[in-house]
Amino acid sequence: VNPEISFSAVSEIARHMDAADPLAAYRDRFFAAEPELIYMDGNSLGRMPSAASEKLEHVLRYEWGERLIRSWGEEWYTLPQVLGDKIGALLGAAPGQMLVCDSTSINLYKLASAALRLNLGRRKIVTDRFNFPSDVYILQGIASQMGVGHRIELIDSRDGIHIEMDDLLGAIDEDTALVGLSHTVFKSGFLYDMEYVTRQAHRKGAFVLWDLSHSAGAVPAALDDWNVDFAVGCTYKYLNGGPGSPAFLYVRTDLQQQAESPIWGWFGEDSPFAFGLDYKPAPGVRRFLTGTPPILSMQALGSGLDLLEEAGIQEIRRKSIQLTQFMIDLFDAFLAPIGFELGSPREASRRGSHISIRHPQGYRINRALIDEMQVVPDFREPDNIRFGFAPLYTSFFDVVEAVRRTVLVVREERYSKYPPDRSPVT
Amino acid sequence: VNPEISFSAVSEIARHMDAADPLAAYRDRFFAAEPELIYMDGNSLGRMPSAASEKLEHVLRYEWGERLIRSWGEEWYTLPQVLGDKIGALLGAAPGQMLVCDSTSINLYKLASAALRLNLGRRKIVTDRFNFPSDVYILQGIASQMGVGHRIELIDSRDGIHIEMDDLLGAIDEDTALVGLSHTVFKSGFLYDMEYVTRQAHRKGAFVLWDLSHSAGAVPAALDDWNVDFAVGCTYKYLNGGPGSPAFLYVRTDLQQQAESPIWGWFGEDSPFAFGLDYKPAPGVRRFLTGTPPILSMQALGSGLDLLEEAGIQEIRRKSIQLTQFMIDLFDAFLAPIGFELGSPREASRRGSHISIRHPQGYRINRALIDEMQVVPDFREPDNIRFGFAPLYTSFFDVVEAVRRTVLVVREERYSKYPPDRSPVT
Repeated sequence: VNPEISFSAVSEIARHMDAADPLAAYRDRFFAAEPELIYMDGNSLGRMPSAASEKLEHVLRYEWGERLIRSWGEEWYTLPQVLGDKIGALLGAAPGQMLVCDSTSINLYKLASAALRLNLGRRKIVTDRFNFPSDVYILQGIASQMGVGHRIELIDSRDGIHIEMDDLLGAIDEDTALVGLSHTVFKSGFLYDMEYVTRQAHRKGAFVLWDLSHSAGAVPAALDDWNVDFAVGCTYKYLNGGPGSPAFLYVRTDLQQQAESPIWGWFGEDSPFAFGLDYKPAPGVRRFLTGTPPILSMQALGSGLDLLEEAGIQEIRRKSIQLTQFMIDLFDAFLAPIGFELGSPREASRRGSHISIRHPQGYRINRALIDEMQVVPDFREPDNIRFGFAPLYTSFFDVVEAVRRTVLVVREERYSKYPPDRSPVT
Repeated sequence: VNPEISFSAVSEIARHMDAADPLAAYRDRFFAAEPELIYMDGNSLGRMPSAASEKLEHVLRYEWGERLIRSWGEEWYTLPQVLGDKIGALLGAAPGQMLVCDSTSINLYKLASAALRLNLGRRKIVTDRFNFPSDVYILQGIASQMGVGHRIELIDSRDGIHIEMDDLLGAIDEDTALVGLSHTVFKSGFLYDMEYVTRQAHRKGAFVLWDLSHSAGAVPAALDDWNVDFAVGCTYKYLNGGPGSPAFLYVRTDLQQQAESPIWGWFGEDSPFAFGLDYKPAPGVRRFLTGTPPILSMQALGSGLDLLEEAGIQEIRRKSIQLTQFMIDLFDAFLAPIGFELGSPREASRRGSHISIRHPQGYRINRALIDEMQVVPDFREPDNIRFGFAPLYTSFFDVVEAVRRTVLVVREERYSKYPPDRSPVT
C-alpha cells in the first residue's frame, strides 16, 4: 500500500468534514503566526484568541497606563468572581461558587486542606496513579503536615489506560476523608464518571475534589447537579487563557460557611479595605481568595471564555468526540501497523479531548515532529506522544496532517538523529 | 499671606531641583496618558514603563502567539529565578536566593510556615500593629493551624509613627520563633533598622522574616550582609511590575536545605518533568516554587527592573530622601497651618519613600483630590492621606502641585460635598 495515496483519500474526507463543521469559523478568531504549523498541544497551552491580544493592549494603555490605581475600583477588584462565574457556566455551577485566583496547585492546597479539616476523624486521601504528579505532591504535602496516620492511597490502572471502578470504590472506606481525582487524566485521557464517583464517595462519607484542568473548555460537567463538593482547574489549556493564567476553584454553596482556607488572605477577608487586624473570613466563596491577583494574566483570560460561551460547550464536546474518533480511525489505519499502541480509551464517553499514542521511540519521534515536521504534540513519560484536540481551532485536516507527518518520521527514521536523553522542559 | 505667591516661589525652586536632578530623564521612560495628572500613588501601583508595553506585545504575538508551548523551554521556565536574581541585586542578595512567584501573601505563608517548623520548640510570632493587615492575617492563620500555644504578639506604637526599639526587643524572648515585620511600614512610612533588629532577634534564637513591599525599588537593603533569614515583597509598587505582578521571596543560602515549604508544588520539585509520584524538593531556593507562574504578569515585570538597575538603587534612595524632605518642608509651610498633622518620621534614616498626612476630613479630602484635582494619593484608615514618591518619575514640581491642590481643596472646602462613608476599594 502506498501511504501517500491513502492520505490523499483521508485528506479529502477531512476537507469535507471541515466544510460541514459548524465551529469551523472559530479558527479565524485565534492568532496564527505560522499557517503551516499543526498545533496539537492545546491541552497544554491553548492558542491565543485575537481578542486577547486586543484586550491586553487596552489593559496596558488604559487600565494600567492611564487609570492606574483607580482601575481597582473600576474593574479589577471583582475579576476573580466575574471570571469565576463565567467558567462556572461552562461546568454547570451557578454563580457564587467559582473563583479565578492563584495556580491550580495553590487552589488544590486550599481546598484539600479545607476538606480534611471538615472530616477530621478520617485520615485517608484516595487518588490514582493517573493524577497529575503536581496534584499528588500537594496531597502528599498536606498529609505530611496533618501528621500521624494521614496517608494517600494511589489506585493503579490495570491496562495503563482506564481506572477500574471496582479498584477505586474498594479503596473508599470509612477512614477516607477525601477522594481527589482528575476528571480527565493527563496521560491516557481517561474520563471519570464524575457523577457516579461523587455519589459513591458521599455514600462512604468522603468529600470529593475534582481537578478539571483537562476537561474545562472541552468536556462539560454539571457540578451543581452532581453535588460535587470541591473542584479546581487550570485555565491555560482548553480555556485559552494564556501561559500560566490563573486557575479556578469551586466550593459548593452549602459548604462555604464551614470550609476554612489554611491561607488567610486579605482578598478573602470580610472587609479588606477596613484594614482591621483580626482576620474574619468573607462570607461565601470569596474567603478562598488570597493575595493580589495578577491582573494582566487575569484580563487575557476573559477573551477565551467569551469564545467558549459563544460556541456552546455541548457543541464543543460534540466536535471533540468527532476529532478524537477520527484520530483513532487514522491510528488504526496508519499508526498501529508501524509499531504504535493506542494509549487512550476507545469509548467516546470515557475519554477527554486528547489522544495518547505510545511507541518505544516516542520521545525521539516527538522531538522530530517538533523540530522538523512543523507538528507540535507533547511527550509524557515513558513513551506517550499526546495529541490534543481543541474544537475551536483544530481542524479535521490538522488531524490527517499530524498523522501523516508522524508516519513520515517513522518511515524515514528521522527520529534516529535525536539523543534518547530527556531535556528538562518538553 | 497669599498662598499663591508662596506657591509660585516654591514652584520656582522645584523647577531648579528638577533641572539639576540626574534621574529626571527617567520620567520619559514611563507611559503618561494624562500629562496633567499628579500621580502620588506609585507606592501602591507603579506607573507603566513604556518598555513593558512593548515587551508585552512581543510576549503576546511571538512567545504565546507564535512559539506557543515551545516558549517554556526557550525563556519562560527560568523566569522565576532570572527575575528573582535581578531583584536580589537591588536588595543585596547574591544570586540563587530569590524567586519571583505567587503573591506576597502566599510567599509569606510558605516562608513563615517553614520558619516555624525550623523552630518548633517556640510558639510566639512577634510583629507590630503597623504591619500590613494582610501579613498579620497570614500569620494568624498559621498560628491557628500550628495549634495550642502558638500566638502572635502585636507591638504597638507610642506616637502613631514610630515603633520604639525597647518595645520590640522586649517582646522577643526565648519562646519567640519568628520576628515578622515590614521594613517600611505601610501607613506612617516608618523604616526599621533591619540590620539591628535582625541581629537582636538572632541573639534570642528567633528567625526574622522581612516584608520589603514598601522598600523594594526605593530603599536599599543588604540582605546577605545583614544575615537576614527570610524576606518577601511585592513587585507592583516601586518595582513598577504592573497590577498584581507576582511577588518575590528570599531564603538565605544556608537555610535552604533545611527549610520546607508547606505547599509541595511541582515547579519546586527536583525533576518536575520526570513526572514521578514521590515528591522530592529541589535543592536550593527553587523548592519554594509552587504551580505554573502567570507568564504575562511575570514578563511585564522585567522592564521595570531594568530601569531600576540602570538608574542605580543608591541614586534612587538619594532622590527619594530629597523628595520626602521637600514634602515635609512644604507640609510645614502650607499644610500644618490648615489643620494637617504629619504622620511620618522626620528623620530621613527612619522613613521610606512615602509621607502620610493626617486630617479629620482625610477621607473626603482624598476623594476630592482624585475626583476634582487630578491628584492621586491614597487613603488609609482612619485619617491618613498617603503621598508616594517614586524617584524614577516623581518630580519636585509634582510635589509642589500635590500640596498646592491639597491646600485648595481645604481652603475651598471642596471635600464637603463627599459623603463620609467609605467605598470598599480606595
